Amino acid sequence: MGHNVAQKLIAAHLLAGDMTAGREIALRIDQALTQDATGTLVMLELEALGLDRARTEVSVQYVDHNLLQTDSRNAEDHAFLRSACHRFGLWYSKPGNGVSHPTHMQRFGIPGKTLAGSDSHTPAAGSLGMLAIGLGGIEVAMAIAGEPVYLRMPHIWGVRLTGELPAWVSAKDVILEMLRRHGVKGGVDRIIEYHGPGLAHLTAMDRHVIANMGAELGATTTVFPADDQVREFLRAERREHDFVELLADPDATYDVTDEIDLSSLEPLIALPSSPGNVVTVREAAGRPVDQVVIGSSANPGLRDFAVVAAIVSGRQAHPRVSLDVNPSSRQILQDLTKMGATFALISAGARLHQSGCMGCIGMGQAPANGHNSLRTVPRNFPGRSGTREDSVFLCSPESAAAAALTGQITDPRDLPHLLGIDYPRLELPAESSVNTAMLEPPPAPAEQVELVKGANISSLPGFPPLPDRVEAPVALKVGDDVSTDEILPAGAHVLPYRSNIPKLAEFTFAQIDENYAGRAHACRDSGHIVVGGANYGQGSSREHAVIAPRYLGLRVVLAVSFARIHWQNLANFGVLALEFGDAGDYHRVEQGDILVLEGLRDAMASGGTEITVRNTTRDQLYSTRHRLSERQRAMVLAGGVIPWIRGGSAAGG
Amino acid sequence: MGHNVAQKLIAAHLLAGDMTAGREIALRIDQALTQDATGTLVMLELEALGLDRARTEVSVQYVDHNLLQTDSRNAEDHAFLRSACHRFGLWYSKPGNGVSHPTHMQRFGIPGKTLAGSDSHTPAAGSLGMLAIGLGGIEVAMAIAGEPVYLRMPHIWGVRLTGELPAWVSAKDVILEMLRRHGVKGGVDRIIEYHGPGLAHLTAMDRHVIANMGAELGATTTVFPADDQVREFLRAERREHDFVELLADPDATYDVTDEIDLSSLEPLIALPSSPGNVVTVREAAGRPVDQVVIGSSANPGLRDFAVVAAIVSGRQAHPRVSLDVNPSSRQILQDLTKMGATFALISAGARLHQSGCMGCIGMGQAPANGHNSLRTVPRNFPGRSGTREDSVFLCSPESAAAAALTGQITDPRDLPHLLGIDYPRLELPAESSVNTAMLEPPPAPAEQVELVKGANISSLPGFPPLPDRVEAPVALKVGDDVSTDEILPAGAHVLPYRSNIPKLAEFTFAQIDENYAGRAHACRDSGHIVVGGANYGQGSSREHAVIAPRYLGLRVVLAVSFARIHWQNLANFGVLALEFGDAGDYHRVEQGDILVLEGLRDAMASGGTEITVRNTTRDQLYSTRHRLSERQRAMVLAGGVIPWIRGGSAAGG
Repeated sequence: MGHNVAQKLIAAHLLAGDMTAGREIALRIDQALTQDATGTLVMLELEALGLDRARTEVSVQYVDHNLLQTDSRNAEDHAFLRSACHRFGLWYSKPGNGVSHPTHMQRFGIPGKTLAGSDSHTPAAGSLGMLAIGLGGIEVAMAIAGEPVYLRMPHIWGVRLTGELPAWVSAKDVILEMLRRHGVKGGVDRIIEYHGPGLAHLTAMDRHVIANMGAELGATTTVFPADDQVREFLRAERREHDFVELLADPDATYDVTDEIDLSSLEPLIALPSSPGNVVTVREAAGRPVDQVVIGSSANPGLRDFAVVAAIVSGRQAHPRVSLDVNPSSRQILQDLTKMGATFALISAGARLHQSGCMGCIGMGQAPANGHNSLRTVPRNFPGRSGTREDSVFLCSPESAAAAALTGQITDPRDLPHLLGIDYPRLELPAESSVNTAMLEPPPAPAEQVELVKGANISSLPGFPPLPDRVEAPVALKVGDDVSTDEILPAGAHVLPYRSNIPKLAEFTFAQIDENYAGRAHACRDSGHIVVGGANYGQGSSREHAVIAPRYLGLRVVLAVSFARIHWQNLANFGVLALEFGDAGDYHRVEQGDILVLEGLRDAMASGGTEITVRNTTRDQLYSTRHRLSERQRAMVLAGGVIPWIRGGSAAGG
Repeated sequence: MGHNVAQKLIAAHLLAGDMTAGREIALRIDQALTQDATGTLVMLELEALGLDRARTEVSVQYVDHNLLQTDSRNAEDHAFLRSACHRFGLWYSKPGNGVSHPTHMQRFGIPGKTLAGSDSHTPAAGSLGMLAIGLGGIEVAMAIAGEPVYLRMPHIWGVRLTGELPAWVSAKDVILEMLRRHGVKGGVDRIIEYHGPGLAHLTAMDRHVIANMGAELGATTTVFPADDQVREFLRAERREHDFVELLADPDATYDVTDEIDLSSLEPLIALPSSPGNVVTVREAAGRPVDQVVIGSSANPGLRDFAVVAAIVSGRQAHPRVSLDVNPSSRQILQDLTKMGATFALISAGARLHQSGCMGCIGMGQAPANGHNSLRTVPRNFPGRSGTREDSVFLCSPESAAAAALTGQITDPRDLPHLLGIDYPRLELPAESSVNTAMLEPPPAPAEQVELVKGANISSLPGFPPLPDRVEAPVALKVGDDVSTDEILPAGAHVLPYRSNIPKLAEFTFAQIDENYAGRAHACRDSGHIVVGGANYGQGSSREHAVIAPRYLGLRVVLAVSFARIHWQNLANFGVLALEFGDAGDYHRVEQGDILVLEGLRDAMASGGTEITVRNTTRDQLYSTRHRLSERQRAMVLAGGVIPWIRGGSAAGG
C-alpha cells in the first residue's frame, strides 16, 4: 500500500513505536527552532542539561517576539541568547531579522526533514514538505541535545484541493474555510496533508499561510508535498541544491478525507474572538474599522505585503484607520523596498514597524477597547492584542487592504466598482534579496564561552530525585478546571521574569491564593503537596506552571484528573501526578492536612501504578494511581528530564 | 540703535511690558503645538476653559510620543485627541506622521511668527526665524484660547559663527560645542541668537539641530535669521510663499556674546548621563557599543539619515550592535525610500521603526544595564532611555554610523583609513515628497462635536474660588528640595493616567508617604495644607504635580521657598503658595496640626503680600507672604487660570 507524505516523513525518522494511530512514537529531529519568548528558558535548560554542542543538523534561536524593549530586561535577554548560541552551537537571528517561521523557511527549510520548535506555529515549515512540530521548551531542548521527540501517532487527514483561487481570494481564505468547516478542535490528534491538482497554483509561501494556521485547528502539524512549487521557492532563495522531491505515492490513502474546490471560495473573515468564528466578508461588511494590521507568520510572504501595497498605492488610508505594517523579515522588507512597495505603503499612510511579530502577539499596536481591528494574523483570542475588551477580526491581506481604504469591513471584490481598483496582478522579483548578515552562524565549538546573564536571568534551579518517603502538608487545595493561567499567570507583569524562576515563583497561584507562595517557600526543603479537582492544569502548555511551584518545593499533585500537557510537564520536571482512585476522597482532604507517601522509589521502579496516601491529620487512607510510562517513571525517579538526561539514562543520551 | 532678530520678534508681538531683561512681558502667540504626552491634558483644559475654537493662526496636535500601544489606553488617547481637534479647531497629525518639531517646521513654520508648544524642544522652530517657546500645558491651552504668553524678558546672547564645518563634522557638533563650553545651565534666562558669516553654509535643518538642543543649555529659546537658507528650505517644501526675510539690523547688539569658528570643530560626544558632559569623540574612542539609535527631533533632517545610510551602505552593522532607526516623519521616510537610503539602511541591518520619538523618550529601545548606547537624540539624563542603569552617549549621525560599523566609539574621521569609506557628499532631492494626507485639517466650526473619551479619560475637575477662610489640617510635612517627581512620579505605571486626574491623584506623594492621598481625600471638601522646606517643587514643569493634589483638596502650600515653575503652576491652578516670613517657623509646625487663614480674599484683592497663619493645634502665629503678581492674585482668587479665563477677567478674554 502506498504512503502519503506524512507517513513517509514519519517512517524516515521513526526511532521507536509503530505508525498506528494513538500509539506513542519516537522521532529523530533534524532541525530545531526557538524564539525569544520561550528560548531563554530553553537555553537555561540546555545549560542545566550540561549540553556541549547542539546535536541537530541545524538549530536556530530567533528573536522576534519581544522587540519593544520597554526596559533593560529585553536587551539583556538578547545578549544572553546570543551568548548561549555561541556556547551551545546554535544560529542566532538578531532582533530585526524577522519572524522565525518565514525566516526559517527561507534560509533553513529542507524537504524531508523534521523540525521541532518551541512555538505553536512551527508547523508552517510543512509548506516545504517538512514534518514540523510545535512543542514545549524542554522537549525542544531535548531535541537540540539529540533526544527524540515523543508523540502519539496522529491520524492523517487528507484534504484534496481542486480548482484555482479566484481574483481577490487568497491562501488565507483557504485556511479560514477549513476553520469555518471544522472549528478550532477539528484537527486535534491529526496531521493535515494537502494534496490534489489545486496545489499546482499555490506557491510555497501560500502553503506556509495554510500550514501555519493549521495550529488553529488544533492539528499536530500540516504537511504539503515537496513538488515543483517548492523547488521554485528554493531556487528563488538560491538554495535549489537543498531541494528533495517528496510526493505521496499514487495509491496513498488517508485516515480521514475532505475536499475543497478552490474556485468556489470567497473572501472569509473570523469574527471576534476565535479563529473558528468564520463567516464571509460579505456577511460582516459595513462594520467600522479603526485599525488594520498587516504581517505575522500567518501572512508573511512578499506577495502578502505587495498585494496590499498595490491596492493602496496612490490612495490614502481612511482618516480613522491606523494602518500598521509589520514586515515579517528583513529580507522581505528589502524586497518590498526594492520593488517600490514600501514607498507605496508609506505614502498611503502606513505605520511601518520593525520586522517581527509585533502586534500579532500583543507587543504593541493594542487597539482601543471595543474598536474593530482587522488583522492578517493567525489568532484573535480575547485580549491577545493587549486590549482586554478587544474586537479583532482575522482576514486576508486583500480584505485588510480594502478595509484600510474604506474604514469599514469591505469585500475586496467590491473594490473595482467602489474605488476603481483592478485586482492587482503582481510581478514579484524572480530572486529574493538573500541577506544573511543578521543571521550569526554558530562559532567553532567553544565550551569556554561564558553565558551573559543580566540581573534578571538566573540559572534553572537543580531539582533533587524523588525521595522514597514524602511527608508534607497540603499547601493548597483547588477546585475543578484550574488552568495554567491560574497556576502561573502570563501578562506584562509576569512575563519579564520568565528567565528568573525564583522571582517568577512569587506569582505562583497568586490569582487563587496570594499567600500560597509564601507558605510553600517556608517549607521548601521538605516539600509540599497540592490537591486539585478534575481537569487540573488545563490551558496553555507553559512549563513555567510546573517549574515555578516545583522551585517552591512541590513534590506531588493529587487530583481527580489532569489535563494532558500539564500532566506531561509535571513528569518532565519530576513532580509526581497522582489521581484519586475514588474521586470522593477529594472531598475528605483539606488544605493544611499532612499527607505521607512511602516506598515511592520501589513503587515507581517496579512498574506498579497504585500508591497509597496516608492523611495523618485525619487518619485516612486514599488509594491513588499514576499513569506514567516507563520512560516517564524513570524521569520522575531522577527528579525530572534534566537530571535523567544528565544521568545518561535516556535513549539517545 | 539697531535690533537683533530676537528683539524684532518680541517687539512685533509685545502686548504688555517692555523689553528690559528681567521684566515680565506679554506676547501675542500666532501658532501653537502640542504632542500626545502633554496634549490630552491641554485638550481637557480647553474643554474646562469652555473654548469654542482655537484663536491662533494655526494650532496642531501631534501624536509622536506614545506610539507603542501596549494596551488599549494609548489608542483611546488617539481617538480622544482626534475628536478634540475636530471640536476645538486644531490640526491633527496622525500617529506615524512624525515628530512634532520637524513636521511643524516643514508644514507650518513661518518666519516672524511666534509659536507656543507644550514640549521643551519647541524652540527648534527658531531655525526658521520664529520665536518658539516651550511651556506647560495650561499656558499653551491659554495661548490656543487667544491669551498672551507671559515671561520675563531674557538676555539676548549673540553667538557669531565663522568658517565652515569640516568633513565628518556636522550641526550636532556645533551645539555639543556650546554645551561643552557653557554646560546645561549656560542658557538660563537667555535667548541664543546665531549670526555671522558661518550661517551661510548651515541649512535650515542644520539650524533646527542647533535650535532644538538649545533647550539643553536651559535657554528660553534660540533664534536664527530668516535668510536665503530659510527661503530655500521653504521652496523645497513648496511653501516659498510663506517666506518673509527677517535679519538683524547691521548695527544690532547683544547682551552677551560668544563666537565659534566652525572650521575648528571636531566630532564631539556627550558622555553619560548629561548633555553637558561633552568631550571629543577621539577622547572617548574604543569603548564597546551595543546599540546605536538614529533619529529624534535633535537630528531629524533627511541628511541626518541619508548620511548614515551613505556610510553604512553595502556594509553591515557590527554583530553586537542593534542599529535602531527612527524616521522623524513620514515625509522624510518617503524621501529616504525614494532616494534608496531606506534600502541601504535595511540592508546594513537597521531595525527600521515607525516614524516618531520612540527611543528618544524611552518608548522602547531600552538598552541593557551598563551597555553603551550611542544616540543622535538630545538628552541622556539617567533612566530616560527606559533603563535604570543606562549608559547613553549623544553624538552626531556621522559618529553614530561609525560606531554602528565598528562596534565601538569611533571618530568618524578615521573611517577612510579604517574601512575605506570616503566622506559622503550627499545629493539630496531638490524638493521634498510633500505629503499632508496624515495631517487632518480642522473641520468647519463644530461646537456639536462630541469628545471621544475612553474609560481612562476624565474631564478636568472643576476647582472652586479661593475661600475667605481656610481651616484645614497639615496633611503632609516634607523637607527641602522635594521634586515634582516626588510629588507626582512619572514612569510607565503612572503616565498612562495622565488624562485621568482622579486615578492619577492616587499616586500623589506616594514616594514620600503612600497614605497621603487617602488622608487628603478624606477631607477633600474642606481642604488640606502641605508644609514644605526650601526649594519646594524643583524639577520638571509637569502641571500634574499641582492638579493631582489640588484634586485631593490642596488649598495652601506653606514652604520656606519655592522652585520657580512649580510656584507658577500652583498659582495657575489656584493653590495659594505662602513662604514663611521666619524660616524657623518651619520647624514649629507639624503634620496633623490645624491651620487657620482668615480674610484671604480681601488680602489678595487689596494687593497686600502678608498673610498671618494661625496654628490652632499649638496656639502659634506664623507671619507669611506670597509673591504673586496682580494677574496671579486674580487667578488664585478665581480658583485658577481656568475659572479666571471663563469668568472673562483675562486681558485677552
